[in-house]
Amino acid sequence: MSESNAHEIARAAKSAFEGSQLVPTSERVKALHEIRNALEANKTQILEANKHDLQAAKAEVDAGRMSESLMKRLDLGKGDKWDSMLQGISDVAGLPDPTGSVSYASELDDDLELYRVSCPIGVLLVIFEARPEVVVNIASLAIKSGNAAILKGGKESNRTTSLLSKAISAGLSKTSLPETYVQTIQTRAEVSSLLELDQYIDLVIPRGSNSLVRNIQNNTRIPVMGHADGICSVFLDETADVEKAVRIVVDSKTDYPSACNAAENLIIHEAVLNTVWPAVAKALLEAGVTLLCDSASLTAVKSLPSPPKNLDRHVQLSQPSSYSTEHLSLTLSVIVLPSLKSAIEFINSHSSHHTDSIVTESDASASTFCRGVDSAGTFVNASTRFADGFRYGFGTEVGISTGRIHARGPVGLEGLVTYKYMMRSKGSSGHIVGEFGTGKKQYKHKKIEANAVPF
Amino acid sequence: MSESNAHEIARAAKSAFEGSQLVPTSERVKALHEIRNALEANKTQILEANKHDLQAAKAEVDAGRMSESLMKRLDLGKGDKWDSMLQGISDVAGLPDPTGSVSYASELDDDLELYRVSCPIGVLLVIFEARPEVVVNIASLAIKSGNAAILKGGKESNRTTSLLSKAISAGLSKTSLPETYVQTIQTRAEVSSLLELDQYIDLVIPRGSNSLVRNIQNNTRIPVMGHADGICSVFLDETADVEKAVRIVVDSKTDYPSACNAAENLIIHEAVLNTVWPAVAKALLEAGVTLLCDSASLTAVKSLPSPPKNLDRHVQLSQPSSYSTEHLSLTLSVIVLPSLKSAIEFINSHSSHHTDSIVTESDASASTFCRGVDSAGTFVNASTRFADGFRYGFGTEVGISTGRIHARGPVGLEGLVTYKYMMRSKGSSGHIVGEFGTGKKQYKHKKIEANAVPF
Repeated sequence: MSESNAHEIARAAKSAFEGSQLVPTSERVKALHEIRNALEANKTQILEANKHDLQAAKAEVDAGRMSESLMKRLDLGKGDKWDSMLQGISDVAGLPDPTGSVSYASELDDDLELYRVSCPIGVLLVIFEARPEVVVNIASLAIKSGNAAILKGGKESNRTTSLLSKAISAGLSKTSLPETYVQTIQTRAEVSSLLELDQYIDLVIPRGSNSLVRNIQNNTRIPVMGHADGICSVFLDETADVEKAVRIVVDSKTDYPSACNAAENLIIHEAVLNTVWPAVAKALLEAGVTLLCDSASLTAVKSLPSPPKNLDRHVQLSQPSSYSTEHLSLTLSVIVLPSLKSAIEFINSHSSHHTDSIVTESDASASTFCRGVDSAGTFVNASTRFADGFRYGFGTEVGISTGRIHARGPVGLEGLVTYKYMMRSKGSSGHIVGEFGTGKKQYKHKKIEANAVPF
Repeated sequence: MSESNAHEIARAAKSAFEGSQLVPTSERVKALHEIRNALEANKTQILEANKHDLQAAKAEVDAGRMSESLMKRLDLGKGDKWDSMLQGISDVAGLPDPTGSVSYASELDDDLELYRVSCPIGVLLVIFEARPEVVVNIASLAIKSGNAAILKGGKESNRTTSLLSKAISAGLSKTSLPETYVQTIQTRAEVSSLLELDQYIDLVIPRGSNSLVRNIQNNTRIPVMGHADGICSVFLDETADVEKAVRIVVDSKTDYPSACNAAENLIIHEAVLNTVWPAVAKALLEAGVTLLCDSASLTAVKSLPSPPKNLDRHVQLSQPSSYSTEHLSLTLSVIVLPSLKSAIEFINSHSSHHTDSIVTESDASASTFCRGVDSAGTFVNASTRFADGFRYGFGTEVGISTGRIHARGPVGLEGLVTYKYMMRSKGSSGHIVGEFGTGKKQYKHKKIEANAVPF
């Protein structure tokens, strides 16, 4: 694509966004229902295209150019995937409207009112890999929150996503929302051009591999929301309960090892090296986890009373880099440290500020850990795997942010809105600043109770 | 400065931030009082250094290398500037703590609680020009909100700011906050190196000229909060009241023409070209404003019944670029458009999304304008000059953001905090994700009423 095409797409998106500001929010909900209808009407065709994508992927897998797990994620016909994609649209349609709510309202003077009201951000550029249903998922979230969107899926799913996009456009065309409200692009070259256009695009949301996210972060001035690494830690405090430790470490590591909220590092207070750690190590090895241990934890594992078979294959000496690695597999890096303080420092310098958990019976340690660890999630006696928009109660999730600006942790629809200030003078001659000041009128700053802007 | 020095400063700031997380918030307030004391104790010395800066600036002004207005802004001894700087510290100390407040709390399961709690962002890099008191101002805001800061003032005020910084350090040293909590740097080279260090610095706040801000935005991956341009518009709707129009346009343009919230564009609905515009034009010309008019508004001015003297000097034909120019002076660009809709489109494509105002007697037009104009502030019958943290009731202001991410419009202490999620299991065996799902435990998601985290 030429740069001028990217420019055209981005400009069309911005103009669609601006135009949509005067369309009633009910049209956004209608659009979601129409998109669901359009998908249902084209199910056969879409699943057919998906089969072609899968066949092409199979050839890539056979040639050793694609992983089996990537191919599996392409499959839209598997199990209840299609139905839950459709249900997802209806779920998003049913969520509360994140726009139009007032978070600050003040009477500045007689007949002069100020309202801070939530509103869409503008134009989102969403880039993701493999799973084609994410097109529908993210389009639903963008539409519900009133943002225009430009979507780019993985090239492996181009046949499927282009039909999904067609259904999205067909749904939109049944409403008064602009046709270019959601656009889809196909190539990396288009993405590169779009990443330059910060005058039109307000937020980039990459969902995919570490390298995808990092590459985008390094190549745009546009704010990026998401996370590259998910390096989460569990810390076993000196008062850790052994049963809790076993359950939480095993769940954090093994419940879904390739998720960003799976634990990659285990930190053991030296006081529990020979009390809690042996039971945890045993449970991890039984669950098939490979341990990369520092020398202290390694020695302790090797002296387990009944060591599992193939101990040497599953327990290895760690490297310094082990603790900065997102394994995304049944591998866990283990280190022993002398104190809660040193554990907090270790986490702050090694974790990706995603989610970290302490296992402790001490309220003081829990409080210190939650405040001292500088991560989006700090948990007490709970698995790191709880870090998730659905589990947090947000209904659905845009992604998980390890940034500190705008949104942090699991991001729901709230993360796709910003706010604006609306001010209204009802005074007989309007309001001017020159009438306020020393010896003149003073600001009242009287709180107004309001959930919505009254004009 | 070598790059390794910048690295050292940034690393020290991050480590000071992390260390400060376990220092009670009362120490932050104490620090502000101690800084005020240290400034009072060193008043003579600081004002002496300020005189030297002023003398050097005078020489620059005489040589034509510095503007008179820039020199004036350096003067810390003028009027009540010193006292109001000190009062500002006490005012910030007295504001409510922006950290530690809970904005979302939910019981996910029996004995499993989730809290979203406000907390500092991390390390701020604040870059500003000329006015030396901004060092103290911003240091106070950073300390109050719990952020570490690296400050860079204008080179014209180096002698003054280095003593102000010394007083800040002296104040901090009387508390248990780390000494490197607030650091000051002196050169542009240091800034350039620091802008690379996104692993340590979380937010850049530039306060100064358009070119300063733009240059920073173009040279860092770190989020930038602020605004480059302040191109604000006033629109005279077809139902505009003439008295309101005169008052609001004159105040928006002339109350403080070099402020970012001063109006630069006036848009006239063609229906009021010969009714409202003549009175507004007359008032503007009497206030010494130069008008850059399109041909329709120009013709109308030229047929004023009693045109002011030197009309041709003060009323000129506009260029297309006039409407994208931040005049920062007593100059106003004027255009006539056929409808509210076209005015909204004109503002969205020409304003800097800062603050725009409509003068109207129509509730429908007010509502359409406030929703359709995509700016941080949309006002009805009120001067654009109201866009200001103090006037909005925030107590003080970090700056005004035209970005849509994190904070928008005038930014108070709230803009310097983010949040984290704390989760606590009080269950007898901790909480794991594996126990939830189809046929297993379900999430409760029961709202908890809480203002602070109870552990």
